[in-house]
Amino acid sequence: MAKQIQTAITPTRAQDYTEWYQQVVKASEMAERSPVRGCMVIKPWGYAVWENIVRTLDEMFKQVGVKNAYFPLFIPLSFLEKEAQHVEGFAKECAVVTHHRLEKRADGSLAPAGLLQEPLIVRPTSETIIGDSFSKWVSSYRDLPVLINQWANVVRWEMRTRLFLRTSEFLWQEGHTAHATRQEAEQRTRMMLDVYTRLAEEYLAVPVIRGKKSPAERFPGAVDTLSIEALMQDRKSLQAGTSHFLGQNFARASEIKFQSADETEEYAWTTSWGVSTRLIGGLIMTHGDDDGVILPPKVASAHVVLMPIIRKPDDKPGVMAFVDGLASALREKHYGSQRILVEIDAREIGGARGWEWIKKGIPLRVEIGLRDIADDSVSVARRDRAPNQKESIKKNRFISDITRMLDEIQQNLFERALSFRTEHTHQIDEPGAFHDFFSPANQEKPEIHGGFALSCWCGSALCESKIKEELTVTIRCIPLEDDGKRGKCICCGKPESLRVFFAKAY
Amino acid sequence: MAKQIQTAITPTRAQDYTEWYQQVVKASEMAERSPVRGCMVIKPWGYAVWENIVRTLDEMFKQVGVKNAYFPLFIPLSFLEKEAQHVEGFAKECAVVTHHRLEKRADGSLAPAGLLQEPLIVRPTSETIIGDSFSKWVSSYRDLPVLINQWANVVRWEMRTRLFLRTSEFLWQEGHTAHATRQEAEQRTRMMLDVYTRLAEEYLAVPVIRGKKSPAERFPGAVDTLSIEALMQDRKSLQAGTSHFLGQNFARASEIKFQSADETEEYAWTTSWGVSTRLIGGLIMTHGDDDGVILPPKVASAHVVLMPIIRKPDDKPGVMAFVDGLASALREKHYGSQRILVEIDAREIGGARGWEWIKKGIPLRVEIGLRDIADDSVSVARRDRAPNQKESIKKNRFISDITRMLDEIQQNLFERALSFRTEHTHQIDEPGAFHDFFSPANQEKPEIHGGFALSCWCGSALCESKIKEELTVTIRCIPLEDDGKRGKCICCGKPESLRVFFAKAY
Repeated sequence: MAKQIQTAITPTRAQDYTEWYQQVVKASEMAERSPVRGCMVIKPWGYAVWENIVRTLDEMFKQVGVKNAYFPLFIPLSFLEKEAQHVEGFAKECAVVTHHRLEKRADGSLAPAGLLQEPLIVRPTSETIIGDSFSKWVSSYRDLPVLINQWANVVRWEMRTRLFLRTSEFLWQEGHTAHATRQEAEQRTRMMLDVYTRLAEEYLAVPVIRGKKSPAERFPGAVDTLSIEALMQDRKSLQAGTSHFLGQNFARASEIKFQSADETEEYAWTTSWGVSTRLIGGLIMTHGDDDGVILPPKVASAHVVLMPIIRKPDDKPGVMAFVDGLASALREKHYGSQRILVEIDAREIGGARGWEWIKKGIPLRVEIGLRDIADDSVSVARRDRAPNQKESIKKNRFISDITRMLDEIQQNLFERALSFRTEHTHQIDEPGAFHDFFSPANQEKPEIHGGFALSCWCGSALCESKIKEELTVTIRCIPLEDDGKRGKCICCGKPESLRVFFAKAY
Repeated sequence: MAKQIQTAITPTRAQDYTEWYQQVVKASEMAERSPVRGCMVIKPWGYAVWENIVRTLDEMFKQVGVKNAYFPLFIPLSFLEKEAQHVEGFAKECAVVTHHRLEKRADGSLAPAGLLQEPLIVRPTSETIIGDSFSKWVSSYRDLPVLINQWANVVRWEMRTRLFLRTSEFLWQEGHTAHATRQEAEQRTRMMLDVYTRLAEEYLAVPVIRGKKSPAERFPGAVDTLSIEALMQDRKSLQAGTSHFLGQNFARASEIKFQSADETEEYAWTTSWGVSTRLIGGLIMTHGDDDGVILPPKVASAHVVLMPIIRKPDDKPGVMAFVDGLASALREKHYGSQRILVEIDAREIGGARGWEWIKKGIPLRVEIGLRDIADDSVSVARRDRAPNQKESIKKNRFISDITRMLDEIQQNLFERALSFRTEHTHQIDEPGAFHDFFSPANQEKPEIHGGFALSCWCGSALCESKIKEELTVTIRCIPLEDDGKRGKCICCGKPESLRVFFAKAY
């Protein structure tokens, strides 16, 4: 195997991780910036990944009794104000609609007109507007639980944006449920975190840690926020999904009340939970290499590209017939609940063609020339291996083996990511070592950070904020499964403190 | 068969069609008004119909080479202004975002803050913002055609709204394509109208007429607008889908240029086309009766409801075992590309239960009591027949026949709607008869209008606007297939005029 000298993406991850990410997204044609501040255009190759995530998750939601519905894009300001912490949390990043038409000025230009009596907020999340519906739908314990999900766009005005990871508009799902008891709502919060864990690990091939947020990191208005966290290749953590137990806070704010079996009037217990197009950013940063994106087969925009090699015009009919036949045979097969997705790229643009598909991260690349056809074979390259590593496989064996190969790639990506996380997760009990782990001065490369530190925390907001200020490190989560071991707080030294995950974060 | 004395919906269609529509939607639990002016909440039973429409149409789009993508919700005012007719058409109904955060006033209340340099319009349609992307994607004839679709929400501020039919926010798809030649773009415009025709007739069971809009009724900025039009039961026409040939107007506005094979620089030819949640309103108004909604099986939220009849607590385990077994057997079967969707309703609320499902329009209702079980039978009622018309069918025959029964209902609904349309479509050549046909004074019932008049029109905007003013009747379309027959203009009497479809419209 020849040593690869040049990479397809400049700079490499080690040279400049942030710029690598921008370049890798650009080269993959998954998304691009738009002329609207902070908003992105999701291009077909990126949107197809989102469609696969939507289909997968939607099926899982339906299996746990959740139904889809749709609620207004706009939230009256007075609704947002119903929950004090909630409005506080979103006030600084709201897109506000104030007018409902345009009018010609004297100079012929158009200006907003038709001032609204009450400003409308473009939803940053929908607890308050969905709560209003729930208050009408629920009157007796017999109406509970209500289990609703919405696929929608939301807007949170961001000053510094990055494609997929942080954009002013993004696509997501938001689940909202109402229950008769605290216990049932807490169980649902956890159940949906389990769904997100399955999505991340089994489909996106992204291993996650699961835990509870510290009070400072909770969703505004929640009693508890659970999250899944994934370690990116720059060793920063990405919050990949959250599930909130809202207690009775939003039920009080929206008057979601019900008559219990004992004929007393009670407030419902609610939850909300969401994942977004941010997952696509997480997927790219987990699996991508210095040659571009690597898509896990289970959510890939396509599984395999067939590239005919035509040296003379006369060869074309024969080669194309073979390629079309192979494509038909592959498209007959299923991968998961879906057909195998085959691309045929017959452009005559030389070596650039293969590299385009490498940068797009398609799991399998197949070259087919006259010599392959004479041998009834195809030349197969896997995206999880070096670009020049190709294997000649008999056509029929390739057809029968393709799903196994895709599964292998899927598994391989997960294991790589898991090894990476294991390598960069450390139990750290000494404040000095903790500081060294995260201090930029100690990183061997710029923009590559420490990783996960499993260290103890006394539970005080003061220690948490000290660490955040000094090192920009936050508590990612308090692990769901308590191992019972206690130690000294990494900040103040208080004994009997809980072990939690610390990291820098997106 | 007993004569049905009372209907489930008050008023009936004949008594007050507009109010019937509101009541029928309410009783079906498909949608409800929201506290946000003009915006609706689409409830699970209504949203499921939309999901079926989305799945069906999305598959058809992919078959004709269209790929999905996603573009920003916001359009800078300056973009909208790029096409003069376009901005003119939408200026009066725009939601305008002017601020990007909220700030506390002295009295503690929140007010918009962070004034934007340029107002943003919540997209009423996306030609201008998608055109901007196309201008970057296209540089050579080799980049064409570009065939893109977006599933999205859009906002057109409406003063008078009706659930599904006219709301300030609605869900839709908007397709946008760019081509190297005029001919190819015109073919695509027509091809997408064909797709919409198939959706309407084969899935929604709604027969449509197909034609070209008069210049006055065109999409703002289009060269030609094609539409499908359906006749509702109040004999008004509903525009159910449109496909626009945009010529080079938007390519000029957005600078979508390409180098041709002859190395000349040319503007692309573009199209756009869309259908929306309005289709659900059309479906309800086409098939609904005085007992509620009737859902065509191919897009129904569920196909069959099983209703156990339990007279004594002791009967429950036996009846439920039978019901669960039947549900499993039915769920194993497919209807179209989907599994049969089965609801089990075991609530003990007496006769109200069956009526709820009638009002929701589920195609099949099945009652199962001890007597049925003893006979290994079920009691089946079809929504396209009278509510009390039930048939006892052996369980196994029901399982094997269910898809045929659903097909029969689907076919029956289409044929009913087609007969209705045929009955209310008249060739009218005399101005007096034309006037009588549409004059409210001549209607036998309030809010029930004439129907389709196939009458001649000279092509002048003056005649068109005279008719519109006098009778609120518009040219719905100029039929795509010209039968070559000509006559006198129904307004001015000019000979050799084209025959077109006139109707009152939603």
